[in-house]
Amino acid sequence: MEPGPPGGSRPAERGPCLSSPLGADQAASASLLSTAGAEPGRRPLAVAAVLPAGGCGERMGVPTPKQFCPILERPLISYTLQALESVCWIKDIVVAVTGENIEAMNGIIQKYQHKRISVVEAGVTRHRSIFNGLKALAEDQPNSKLCKPEVVIIHDAVRPFVEEDVLLKVVIATKEHGCSDYDLEFGTECLQLALKYCHTKAKLVEGSPDLWKVTYKRDLYAAESIIKERISQEICVVMDSKEGEEHIGHLLEEVLKSELNHVKVTSGALCHAGGDLQQIILEQCYNFVCVNVMTSDFQETQKLLSILEESNLSILYPVVVVSVHFFDVKLVPLSQKMENLMWIRGFAKEVRKRNILLYGLLICYPQDEQKLQESLRQAAVIIAALIKERNSGLVGQLLVA
Amino acid sequence: MEPGPPGGSRPAERGPCLSSPLGADQAASASLLSTAGAEPGRRPLAVAAVLPAGGCGERMGVPTPKQFCPILERPLISYTLQALESVCWIKDIVVAVTGENIEAMNGIIQKYQHKRISVVEAGVTRHRSIFNGLKALAEDQPNSKLCKPEVVIIHDAVRPFVEEDVLLKVVIATKEHGCSDYDLEFGTECLQLALKYCHTKAKLVEGSPDLWKVTYKRDLYAAESIIKERISQEICVVMDSKEGEEHIGHLLEEVLKSELNHVKVTSGALCHAGGDLQQIILEQCYNFVCVNVMTSDFQETQKLLSILEESNLSILYPVVVVSVHFFDVKLVPLSQKMENLMWIRGFAKEVRKRNILLYGLLICYPQDEQKLQESLRQAAVIIAALIKERNSGLVGQLLVA
Repeated sequence: MEPGPPGGSRPAERGPCLSSPLGADQAASASLLSTAGAEPGRRPLAVAAVLPAGGCGERMGVPTPKQFCPILERPLISYTLQALESVCWIKDIVVAVTGENIEAMNGIIQKYQHKRISVVEAGVTRHRSIFNGLKALAEDQPNSKLCKPEVVIIHDAVRPFVEEDVLLKVVIATKEHGCSDYDLEFGTECLQLALKYCHTKAKLVEGSPDLWKVTYKRDLYAAESIIKERISQEICVVMDSKEGEEHIGHLLEEVLKSELNHVKVTSGALCHAGGDLQQIILEQCYNFVCVNVMTSDFQETQKLLSILEESNLSILYPVVVVSVHFFDVKLVPLSQKMENLMWIRGFAKEVRKRNILLYGLLICYPQDEQKLQESLRQAAVIIAALIKERNSGLVGQLLVA
Repeated sequence: MEPGPPGGSRPAERGPCLSSPLGADQAASASLLSTAGAEPGRRPLAVAAVLPAGGCGERMGVPTPKQFCPILERPLISYTLQALESVCWIKDIVVAVTGENIEAMNGIIQKYQHKRISVVEAGVTRHRSIFNGLKALAEDQPNSKLCKPEVVIIHDAVRPFVEEDVLLKVVIATKEHGCSDYDLEFGTECLQLALKYCHTKAKLVEGSPDLWKVTYKRDLYAAESIIKERISQEICVVMDSKEGEEHIGHLLEEVLKSELNHVKVTSGALCHAGGDLQQIILEQCYNFVCVNVMTSDFQETQKLLSILEESNLSILYPVVVVSVHFFDVKLVPLSQKMENLMWIRGFAKEVRKRNILLYGLLICYPQDEQKLQESLRQAAVIIAALIKERNSGLVGQLLVA
């Protein structure tokens, strides 16, 4: 099974606590960490996380420290925070950044609506930064709203693809081994330090290849491609109504299913106040193909855009909307059809500000069944290209299949 | 300075032997390796390379062995071969692939016109494959056209970004240390093996971060992004004639220069049988913006496409051609203009077969100076997007700035 978008969703937006499917053993262990699952009379284990993020990223070869480098226009550290905050049993997350970056960090937390995050000033070394983070979690801090945790996870700010199961393994190993903190890095000096200063034998917990550290510029490229791939796993074909199997939207849906066989294709109806769509949005689909049935109208696209804007879906990732319009060259010349649809340019500019990427797609609808299939296949290729690249430079363009 | 396209050019296509700029010391050392630079009466050092490529790429998580995974539709191993064959003092390159892949490997060599390559069957281990490669280079092989080399470079097939200077360091170190072969991998078992079996103290030669090994799927993503970035460093604005500073092409050129400040923007004229362009093609520019001056014509684009097709430039990388057309809404309605330009769809389909990605771009040309600048800036954004993504799904589309 393909993993969901990096970091999963925010628990507040979804029912269950777990952001990604865990095995039965892991689910049982995880229940010890949440209030609901804890045995009666037993307090759940208090877990917090500290993210040292004071580095300057000199190996990256770019002036911005790597934790602040943008991926799809959002700073890398926001993806890591998203991954940690999606784990509901991590009560507090403390980020240590250099003094000059505190304001920027607070801006990031606000813009991307991160929750349960505190910012502290980093030290001159990674270990000093961790120390400052731990200090903020200690009980004796004046004005601190943070609870003293029993386990603290130390996690690199530049490992955005950490999954709940690895974090869970770390916490369980901590309980068994009794160390005060664990490090997810492999082969760093941390295990040695734990032995030397804490007289504690640290345990190495196996991670996944996805846990790799963004170090070089090529890692940023890889991270961007991984994120793009993950948010392109599902396409929702939106129609005014799902009734009528002969609906042109269903024909397009079928072709998308057969042509893009690595992608899940669903459909949603705009009727009933978009209740269908609400569920799809909750399940974090970031790609919509909106079928407009009237020749020179765009009512459906307008409705969909309103629903998306209200949902806040595009806060974390750019959402692709392809506004599809059919035309029959025998009835209306293509040029006239295009002229009618030029409104899309202004619209695209407007919704771009809210991280929605709107493109227009005109699909030729000939009477000939074979030619129609050819048009729909061409449309599928164009839709796949738009979704894969998520290119903001091409928004508002009217493409022809 | 940004490096050129990975692997540099083929020496046969360019005058100098060196594919990338070397320091003075390195250039002096390199001269010892080429016939031209060797001291009178002294034979240049005979150097060959062996590429073990028999792996199955199980860590990649894809069914294709990683050396055959496509990047911009070309197999990874072809990039590595290109890098090695661009170094003129490597006389022979021997690739070891499993029996079932020999035919495919020969197909790759033919399709991408690789030179000086021999294919042998891989062994069951990496070391056996290297042994088979070395055997092919030994003098006593019947029917072998290969010369026995004095130094053999062993290079992983999945390290496509190797540069001449690193290879040179390896050869020089070999001369000084007298080992029989060197390995570019860091920290592998090879240094130990050299010590154990050859009683030779191998020397570790420092590489660059670019020398990294494609291991996981994310490395393929990174490699693709690096290659795309490297071939997007230069844009040539092509006009019918370079005379006349008021030429609209020059205005576009100026805006491209100011908007895309990380890209080198040059211009070339189609007159004089495209002599200008021949030089630009030789210097490996993979991006062309062709300005058509007649309202509904595409003579300039047709000329450029002919020149590109004859040049073989697109054998190794997809070449982007943006066919630019200006229109004044007061004179001709946009819809009519678009209708006139629909020929581009068929054309794009045709040249796509030869790895040329053709897109159309209509630029609004208002009388108002400020609005014109706005149009040109919008055009620059679209051109940058097309060149960056090199998306074959969108060829033949007519975009509007």
